[in-house]
Amino acid sequence: MTGIPTATISRLVTYLRILEGLEAQDVSRTSSGDLAERAGVTAFQVRKDLAYFGRFGTRGMGYTVPILKRELLRVLGLNQTWNVVIVGLGRLGQAIANYPGASDYQFQYVGLFDVNPELIGQNVRGLPVRHVDELREFTRTTRVDMGFLAVPPERAQDAAQSLADAGVRGILNFAPTVIQPRTLERSGQQEISDEWRAVIVENVDFLAGMKRLAFYILNPHLSTVDTEETE
Amino acid sequence: MTGIPTATISRLVTYLRILEGLEAQDVSRTSSGDLAERAGVTAFQVRKDLAYFGRFGTRGMGYTVPILKRELLRVLGLNQTWNVVIVGLGRLGQAIANYPGASDYQFQYVGLFDVNPELIGQNVRGLPVRHVDELREFTRTTRVDMGFLAVPPERAQDAAQSLADAGVRGILNFAPTVIQPRTLERSGQQEISDEWRAVIVENVDFLAGMKRLAFYILNPHLSTVDTEETE
Repeated sequence: MTGIPTATISRLVTYLRILEGLEAQDVSRTSSGDLAERAGVTAFQVRKDLAYFGRFGTRGMGYTVPILKRELLRVLGLNQTWNVVIVGLGRLGQAIANYPGASDYQFQYVGLFDVNPELIGQNVRGLPVRHVDELREFTRTTRVDMGFLAVPPERAQDAAQSLADAGVRGILNFAPTVIQPRTLERSGQQEISDEWRAVIVENVDFLAGMKRLAFYILNPHLSTVDTEETE
Repeated sequence: MTGIPTATISRLVTYLRILEGLEAQDVSRTSSGDLAERAGVTAFQVRKDLAYFGRFGTRGMGYTVPILKRELLRVLGLNQTWNVVIVGLGRLGQAIANYPGASDYQFQYVGLFDVNPELIGQNVRGLPVRHVDELREFTRTTRVDMGFLAVPPERAQDAAQSLADAGVRGILNFAPTVIQPRTLERSGQQEISDEWRAVIVENVDFLAGMKRLAFYILNPHLSTVDTEETE
């Protein structure tokens, strides 16, 4: 399984959401055409995206909603529990901690961290806010799969380093900044330092969303179809 | 200008952010290799992404940071003012309203809307919260280019309809739900209704970010390079 476009993974998440909507309406069957229309892509794109992961439908019969949903949950790794810490409990971090829906997918907040003395010791959604310096110690006793970074942009790189140092493998970065893995010089070459080798960074950046939106308002003819497959 | 992958637009936003970082460090020249390394893509990808929009560098000389930055601002439409309303002033909407950085790009909040009687009339960042029913009237006197939807998922479709009815051309949807344009039956065919024809919807959904992250933690070999160009 190599060579899967990142846009395919984003679309799988969209298909999953559509399937959940269909299931909530007691719709038991769907088709690539139906999914495509609801997702705003072509039926060809839907079939191509799903084909990376196996055969989920029957030719001419479409898909069984609960089966395709279960398979997408499995593909996306949402059939297991993910332990999450939030770093940064300002307005955004608190909005994230309190956002409904995360727990539907077995994402479970296990720790909250900040550097602001006014926040440390406070309870947010039943968890105490701890100092970031305690993160490493915390991960010795508690399994942490992901860290959500909701700190100001100028703090993001340091906070990401704390997560990497603590052995956290996934970082969801909400700050409008590009996280760089630390590099070391080894035999005259810059190499990614050990603690970053297994770390995945994904970005959820609403300033980036605003900019994409500005572009597509000015260039609406470019937004109707994802042209990726024509390359 | 047709056939530009959505991922290219996302990467332009990343390149812009990197250029701003370089400019802040008084770095005046860069190259596709340097941008590529900082963005986590290949130099070929950088050159290909930029080539959609013109020739910005000199062969063998790389790019002049302030010039490339200015050109990307122009391409993305960030050299003009965008008037924004926020619909939904719960925790997330308030975090968005107070988030630093939006005003750096000429995004200007001009109105705030909710349906919660406890919020209506309150001031957030100097603006009164109004009832969503006033949105249409509001757009008669104030130019509104974009609406940010920060309402609970079950309210998102109705709130998006209010924005479309009010003539707002761009919606940045923060709710974990797929916004569907309204359709009408005309001569036996389902057609998108008029108020939706010119509306662009972009999604900033952190639940989707969590799911992508889960996938890439389980499939780290798929995350290193965006394989889009190999299709």
